[in-house]
Amino acid sequence: MGIIVQKYGGTSVGNVKKIKQVAERVKKTIQDGQQVIVVVSAMGDTTDELVSLMHEVTDHPPRREMDMMLTTGEQISIALLSTVLQELNVPSISYTGWQAGIETEAVFGNARILDINTDRIIESLNEEKVVIVAGFQGLTEKEEIATLGRGGSDTSAVALAAAVNADHCEINTDVDGVYSTDPRIVPNARKLPTISHDEMLEMAALGASVIHPRAVELAKVHGVRIMIRSSFSDIEGTLIKEANNMEKEMVVSGVAYDTDIIKIEVLKMPNQVGITSNLFDYIAKENINVDMIVLSEHGTDTFNVAFTVNNQEAERTIKILNDHKDELKFEDAFYQDGVAKVSIIGSGMVTNPGVAAKMFTVLSDKNIPIKMINTSEIKVSCVIPEKEGKKAVKLLHSAYDLDTENETMVEI
Amino acid sequence: MGIIVQKYGGTSVGNVKKIKQVAERVKKTIQDGQQVIVVVSAMGDTTDELVSLMHEVTDHPPRREMDMMLTTGEQISIALLSTVLQELNVPSISYTGWQAGIETEAVFGNARILDINTDRIIESLNEEKVVIVAGFQGLTEKEEIATLGRGGSDTSAVALAAAVNADHCEINTDVDGVYSTDPRIVPNARKLPTISHDEMLEMAALGASVIHPRAVELAKVHGVRIMIRSSFSDIEGTLIKEANNMEKEMVVSGVAYDTDIIKIEVLKMPNQVGITSNLFDYIAKENINVDMIVLSEHGTDTFNVAFTVNNQEAERTIKILNDHKDELKFEDAFYQDGVAKVSIIGSGMVTNPGVAAKMFTVLSDKNIPIKMINTSEIKVSCVIPEKEGKKAVKLLHSAYDLDTENETMVEI
Repeated sequence: MGIIVQKYGGTSVGNVKKIKQVAERVKKTIQDGQQVIVVVSAMGDTTDELVSLMHEVTDHPPRREMDMMLTTGEQISIALLSTVLQELNVPSISYTGWQAGIETEAVFGNARILDINTDRIIESLNEEKVVIVAGFQGLTEKEEIATLGRGGSDTSAVALAAAVNADHCEINTDVDGVYSTDPRIVPNARKLPTISHDEMLEMAALGASVIHPRAVELAKVHGVRIMIRSSFSDIEGTLIKEANNMEKEMVVSGVAYDTDIIKIEVLKMPNQVGITSNLFDYIAKENINVDMIVLSEHGTDTFNVAFTVNNQEAERTIKILNDHKDELKFEDAFYQDGVAKVSIIGSGMVTNPGVAAKMFTVLSDKNIPIKMINTSEIKVSCVIPEKEGKKAVKLLHSAYDLDTENETMVEI
Repeated sequence: MGIIVQKYGGTSVGNVKKIKQVAERVKKTIQDGQQVIVVVSAMGDTTDELVSLMHEVTDHPPRREMDMMLTTGEQISIALLSTVLQELNVPSISYTGWQAGIETEAVFGNARILDINTDRIIESLNEEKVVIVAGFQGLTEKEEIATLGRGGSDTSAVALAAAVNADHCEINTDVDGVYSTDPRIVPNARKLPTISHDEMLEMAALGASVIHPRAVELAKVHGVRIMIRSSFSDIEGTLIKEANNMEKEMVVSGVAYDTDIIKIEVLKMPNQVGITSNLFDYIAKENINVDMIVLSEHGTDTFNVAFTVNNQEAERTIKILNDHKDELKFEDAFYQDGVAKVSIIGSGMVTNPGVAAKMFTVLSDKNIPIKMINTSEIKVSCVIPEKEGKKAVKLLHSAYDLDTENETMVEI
């Protein structure tokens, strides 16, 4: 018998009917002889509604008061789920983040978990209760309520799994696992039975929205195995676990595709020390996330910089650049839309030369122009025209032998 | 400079506009040089909505989980009010019940306050912040969230006022003070400038809904002065304070009227030890509140019992009696509706003989039959036919010289 942490997101507890389904799933896990900790998010649109209410009174909510407000959403979910479980004769108890012993940094709106005092949770588990914990929240050293920011509930679940040394952490969501690529693009995408933390990290960062990369990172550090599965079906999911170097890894496990990017080009900056770091500093200060960066010399005195940002940040990025044009001394800055990013991901890549080269060949054979390239140990990304995107995904999926024989049945 | 505790109920913080008005009132109090602790209830119908949500999943919510759920209502209010104050450049901080150090019994749904650790509140006041506390809630010794039950926010406010030794506690509500009787019945009712705790206790128990009797009781024990005033006007309210025996008290300060009663009659019970206490035990176990009780011998072997309960409890009370008819051995039990209770209240009554007699004379002179009588040191209540009720209130208000010369302007 072991402890299992199950996380259910906002969609999975979106209404009373769904909460009842979640309770049945939890009950079944108990009947299988497991101890269960459940982490839940706020119901459906609750968080958005609370944010709107706050924005009725101010454009700049104090982060402390915003957290005070937002954490009520999960508190409602845990009370309801605990009640439904008790209706099903499953003993249970709900805990807010602070009651569950989740200690965080004093950073409102985006706190990281520092430690978890599991005494109370363990005591309740020993009393044979299901422990239901409000995700996304914790308590600072000064006893202030703080939220964990994006991916908060995933992070709560993984942190709890690490703290109680759980057998594994289940992320119950609206898809039934991690696929080799988006099944809406490649119908015979395969569901991966396992994937390493690193691979999942890359996939998550590239838009596979089943789990927040932050939670995967935490799981990797603490060696927590994560099962991604559907909230409402019993189909086997995908297990995220440490890479096992003793076995032969698949060279490429997945193809990721992301259309939410825009390419920014900055032409002819002077070749002076510090000028590039200043450029990215200004952008970071405005909380704009920069992804791929390519730098190319233009003659000896100047160079060009290209990088990608999310679609909706294009105008703002150009404005920031132009606001500092006097200092950055570039000739011109503009953005290029209609581009997409296609990536191959695989732990086996690092020990298999030629994997990246094959990707470039597959694309160029079909006359798909590559506009930017970015590589890491387990990933190669190419920026290509968006109109060629889906074709490129299919070609690569097939080229790396990822296609299943039959088309996978996927509910979208 | 002193500390003032201001309490605003659900109607006073019913929407964003009203919360802004409350914030302006708080700001004004700060500008007058006071330190302010604000206690707020949940916005408008929030609590009812949360109760409904809970009842979607069960007819018998576990009280602990119900409290977990309900306390989110006040948590939203405090976050909003604190934010609005900061928008007005008034430094402020919101605290849940447990953050404010409110320690309660381990009785979910109806906990009494045991103690308040004011360290955190005092620290924030010393930092020149307005402290905003969630009413109606506290923390048990085992760190469980518990609600205070009916009148909870009033009670939180008075308890905080006692704990920080506040100058006084303001109950801001939708009426502008305590009247000698219901101005809807007697247009020239007078607003009382002051009233003793005992008198207010009787008035509150008799349906003057400006403050919960439980809070008045607490205020009496700790000598907390309470100002009842309107949330949205600057009109002087009514001050509830300890009776000053050095001054001449008014014999009668008010006339109360309550139509939410039903008379229950139990005929011919055997004259045996313990049988009456059993009867009221059974009723109490079902949480039915019994008000007036009259017991009359019927010959030597049997007696009749009459008592009043709230209107909606009539059927249930009769059923409980009949369920125990074998043991209680009465001949018949039935209820009588169409009755009302009219009461006179006054601290001076105890030292002025003939006050009660005058009441009976006034009523019988106008042929109003008295069906039950109940007296205390500062109150005389009579049950009369409901159709005579308003007439009786007017007659008594006039007979005890409570009428003002001009009709009072009252907004209903």
